[in-house]
Amino acid sequence: MHCAHPFCRTLALAVGLGLILSTQSVFPQAKPAREAIAAAYKVFEAAYFKGDAEAIAKQYTLDAELFLPNGPIVKGRQAIQEVWKNLVSSGGNKLRIETIEVQEAGNWAYETGKFVAMTPDGKVIADAKYLVIWKRDESGEWKTHRDIPNSNVPMKQP
Amino acid sequence: MHCAHPFCRTLALAVGLGLILSTQSVFPQAKPAREAIAAAYKVFEAAYFKGDAEAIAKQYTLDAELFLPNGPIVKGRQAIQEVWKNLVSSGGNKLRIETIEVQEAGNWAYETGKFVAMTPDGKVIADAKYLVIWKRDESGEWKTHRDIPNSNVPMKQP
Repeated sequence: MHCAHPFCRTLALAVGLGLILSTQSVFPQAKPAREAIAAAYKVFEAAYFKGDAEAIAKQYTLDAELFLPNGPIVKGRQAIQEVWKNLVSSGGNKLRIETIEVQEAGNWAYETGKFVAMTPDGKVIADAKYLVIWKRDESGEWKTHRDIPNSNVPMKQP
Repeated sequence: MHCAHPFCRTLALAVGLGLILSTQSVFPQAKPAREAIAAAYKVFEAAYFKGDAEAIAKQYTLDAELFLPNGPIVKGRQAIQEVWKNLVSSGGNKLRIETIEVQEAGNWAYETGKFVAMTPDGKVIADAKYLVIWKRDESGEWKTHRDIPNSNVPMKQP
């Protein structure tokens, strides 16, 4: 099959461009977000136990935002690291994160889930649900871009 | 410009398909999410003031999830309507919602923002930030699909 007509060459170029664009939207990346998220949380849980706020912060984009309850929005990886430094303290506590749902669209994904944090003697210090926006960066890595949890525990009546 | 060669016809079809697919990803919809969200919140604020939980619930997808603080995930439009029925009570309170950021990807968008709710005499009953996942449905309408707020107000020390 060969056609040297100039129209054919123009069409061939257009087809190529069209297919490249459409393939990018249909197969957005090699590594599915769900798999990347599961791997990221293994690292996250280990870092939490070790009290390694820097390793946790590295999982966020540089311009990430953390929406913690009872305070303003924490902006940027550096500020987020400071917050986690307080939360993990010197380590020893256990964190278990469980993804419920992952929905991808191109370089973006949202994820819902829940987590429980416990002291070494099993006292629950956090029992919460969350919504996270993941962003795939230039290197193809999925990073946390927006992160908002809130508690599952009913308010104490005054 | 005309080419009756069978290869040309095949190419023309492929170009058409390629352009349709690529156009869908590059220009995902006529109405940008930010504009649709602004319009939706005008309706939302008015419905809150009127105590119209049904009008609020209609802005959610049928399988939406609402992550309210201090309780489990509320699943589905009907259950969400019941929750809003309690929150709006008989109306009269004012709600002001302010979008901070909107990021679209195909039929999905995330939005961050903040809101304040006040009684008629100006007492603040909620001061919060949120992250919302919007989904564009088959009819092209943007609906709230996942919705999680948490408070900006510092916890009272016991």
